[in-house]
Amino acid sequence: MRIVIAPDSFKGSLSAAAVCAAVTAGVRRAAPAAEVVAVPMADGGEGTLDCFLSARGGDEIEVAAADPLGRPVKARYALSGDGRSAVVELAAASGLPLVEDVPLDPLGATTTGTGELIADAVRRGARDVLVCVGGSAGTDGGAGLLRALGVRFLDAAGGELPPGGAALARLAAIDTSGIPDEVRASRFRVACDVTSPLVGPSGAAAVFGPQKGATPAQVRELDAALTTFADVLAAHAGVRVHDLPGAGAAGGTCGGLIGVLGAEPAAGAALVAEAVRLPAALAGADLVITGEGRLDGQSAGGKVVSAVAALAKERGIPAVALAGGVAAPFDDLHALGLTAAFSLADGPRTLAELKAEAAPLLTVLAEQVVRLRV
Amino acid sequence: MRIVIAPDSFKGSLSAAAVCAAVTAGVRRAAPAAEVVAVPMADGGEGTLDCFLSARGGDEIEVAAADPLGRPVKARYALSGDGRSAVVELAAASGLPLVEDVPLDPLGATTTGTGELIADAVRRGARDVLVCVGGSAGTDGGAGLLRALGVRFLDAAGGELPPGGAALARLAAIDTSGIPDEVRASRFRVACDVTSPLVGPSGAAAVFGPQKGATPAQVRELDAALTTFADVLAAHAGVRVHDLPGAGAAGGTCGGLIGVLGAEPAAGAALVAEAVRLPAALAGADLVITGEGRLDGQSAGGKVVSAVAALAKERGIPAVALAGGVAAPFDDLHALGLTAAFSLADGPRTLAELKAEAAPLLTVLAEQVVRLRV
Repeated sequence: MRIVIAPDSFKGSLSAAAVCAAVTAGVRRAAPAAEVVAVPMADGGEGTLDCFLSARGGDEIEVAAADPLGRPVKARYALSGDGRSAVVELAAASGLPLVEDVPLDPLGATTTGTGELIADAVRRGARDVLVCVGGSAGTDGGAGLLRALGVRFLDAAGGELPPGGAALARLAAIDTSGIPDEVRASRFRVACDVTSPLVGPSGAAAVFGPQKGATPAQVRELDAALTTFADVLAAHAGVRVHDLPGAGAAGGTCGGLIGVLGAEPAAGAALVAEAVRLPAALAGADLVITGEGRLDGQSAGGKVVSAVAALAKERGIPAVALAGGVAAPFDDLHALGLTAAFSLADGPRTLAELKAEAAPLLTVLAEQVVRLRV
Repeated sequence: MRIVIAPDSFKGSLSAAAVCAAVTAGVRRAAPAAEVVAVPMADGGEGTLDCFLSARGGDEIEVAAADPLGRPVKARYALSGDGRSAVVELAAASGLPLVEDVPLDPLGATTTGTGELIADAVRRGARDVLVCVGGSAGTDGGAGLLRALGVRFLDAAGGELPPGGAALARLAAIDTSGIPDEVRASRFRVACDVTSPLVGPSGAAAVFGPQKGATPAQVRELDAALTTFADVLAAHAGVRVHDLPGAGAAGGTCGGLIGVLGAEPAAGAALVAEAVRLPAALAGADLVITGEGRLDGQSAGGKVVSAVAALAKERGIPAVALAGGVAAPFDDLHALGLTAAFSLADGPRTLAELKAEAAPLLTVLAEQVVRLRV
C-alpha cells in the first residue's frame, strides 16, 4: 500500500511539513507496512519556498535587490538542487510590507526587485521559473520586473520612462530586444489566484489600488496607465491582456508577464503541485491524504485540496482531506475528485484548543481514515 | 452493498431512531443503491423498549402494579409482535423516582411491581424475558419480584416474611413450588452493567444503599440480610451468588434472578443486540455504522459501540462508530473490533451547538465514511 500525504499548512497552527509528520504517525499506526510519501504542499503563498526546497532539494538564494521604492533590500528565492528550477515570490522584494516604514507611493512603486531575483535565478541556470504573485506594493503592470530582465519602456520621444505604474501613461513602445537569450529560453509560470482582469472596474487599479494607498483619482490614473500599457503590448506582441482573467494580479504583474514573456498563468496550488513533483509521487498510490486549516466545500477553487483532489481523480486514486474545520456541503469538492473530508475536532472544542492540539488530533484522525481503507 | 446502522441514542440530543435516520440520509447520498438496514440500539437503559419494539413489532403493555412501597402504579413493558418475547425495565414499576414524593424506605422498598410485569408478560405468552435492571428504589435481592412469580419467603416458623430487604434477615427457607410452569419454561436474561457482588464492601447494600437513603447502620443491616438470603439460596438451589460479579445490581435483584430463576446475566448492550436481532441483520453486511453521544476509547465495556463492534468482528465486517465526541486512544475499541471512530464535530463548536446540529452533521459524516468504502 502506497499512501501519499500532500497537505497545505494549517495556517496559524502547523506547517505543511508538520501536518505531514502528524498524519504520517497516524498512517503508520494503521498500516505499519505501508509506503508513506510526504509531499508538503502550498498554494503559492506562505510556505511555498519551503515546500519546493523540501521536494526538490537546493537552497534559498539571497540577492541584493531593489525594494518597491528602489531602496536596497536583501531578498530570497528558492533554487532547486539541480539548479534548473526556481520559485520567486513577488512579496520577497516587491511586497507591500517592505515599504510600510514610509508613506505609500501607489503611483511610483515598482516590481523591479522581483525581476532582479528572476534574473539571478536565470543567470544561475534556472530555466523553469515559478513566480508567485500577491501582496505587491505597486501597480506597475510588472514593468519594473520586465525592465530588470532587459525590456525597455519608451515614451513617444524614444526616452526611457521612469519607474512606477503612473509613468506607463506615456508609454509609446516597448523594446524587448535586450532580453537575454537565457531568459527567452526559460519557461515562466505565474501562480495567480485572483480573476481580476488588468483594467476596468474589476481590474488591478480599481480592486487592489486602494489597499496600496491609491486615492480614487490615483486609481483612475493607474487604470488609464495600465490601459495604455495593454494597448502597447497588444500592438507590440499581438497579445491582448486587457480583459484576461487574472492579468490584474499583483498590480498587473501577471498581465505583463503573460504579455511580454509568454508566462503561463494558473492556480497557485496546481503550479506548486507540479513544482514539487506531486504527479510523480502519485504514481502507484492507493490513497492520497491532503488537508488545510479550514476547508470550505463551496470555495473549492485554487486551494491545495482542490489541486490534489484533481490530480488524484485523473489517476483514479481516492483522496481524503483532513482539516481543522470543514464546512459542508462538499458537493463541489466531491465533484473535483475529493473522496471525503473530515475535521480533526474530536468533540466540543474552542478554536484555540483545536490549534494547540492539531498534531495529535491529526494523528488519531489519519489512523481512523487509513483503518477504513486497509 | 449492505450497510447496517446500529447506534445507541445520543443522550440529550437524538434518539437511536433519529440517529439512524440522519446516518441513513448520509449513506444514501454516498451509496444510493446500497441496502440500508437500520437497527436502533440501546444499552438496557433509556430507549430500550423503543428499540425492541422497533425491531420486533408489538406494543407497550400497561399493567396495574405495585410501586416500591406497595402503592398502585401503572407501569409499562414491551411485548414483541409475536408475543414470545418481552422486555421489562425494573425502573418502570420499581424505580427510585416513583417514591420521591415520600421519605425513602431503604429497608422496606420492594421489586414486587417488576415481578407483576414479568408475570403479566409470561401469562400473555412471553417465554423469553429480558429484564433491564438499574435505578431500583430498594435492596430486596429481588425478593418482591420473585414473590410475584410464585416464590414464598419463609421464616424459621414457616411464616411468610413481610416485604422489603431488611426482612430477609429472618429468612430460613424459600419455597419455589408455587412458580407456575410457564415461568419455569421461560428464559430470563438480566441486562446488568455493574460488577458489584451481592454482599460485602462492594456489594448491593454498601455501594448502592446510601443513594437509596440507607444510613450506615441500615447498610450493615441490609448487607447482613442479603447474606442470609444468599446463604439460603445456596442451600436451596446450590447456587452461590454471594460474590458473583453483577449479582449486586438493582439492590441484589440480579442475584435473586440468577439464583432462583437461573437468569443469565450479561452486558445490557449485548442482550439488547440479541433482543433486536442484530446478529440476523448483520448477515451479509459489508459495513456496520454504530455510535453514541460520547465515545471513550478507554471505557469500552458494556456500551452499544462495543457490543456492535464485537458482533461485527465475529463476522469479519468493518464497524465504524460516529459520536458527538470521541476520546482517543481507541486501542481498546479497535481490539474489540471497531475499525474506526469519528466525531461529528466539524470544527470549533460548543457542546450546545453540536447537540443542536447533531442530525445534519451526522448526515455529512456518514456520507464521508461511506464514500471511503464504496
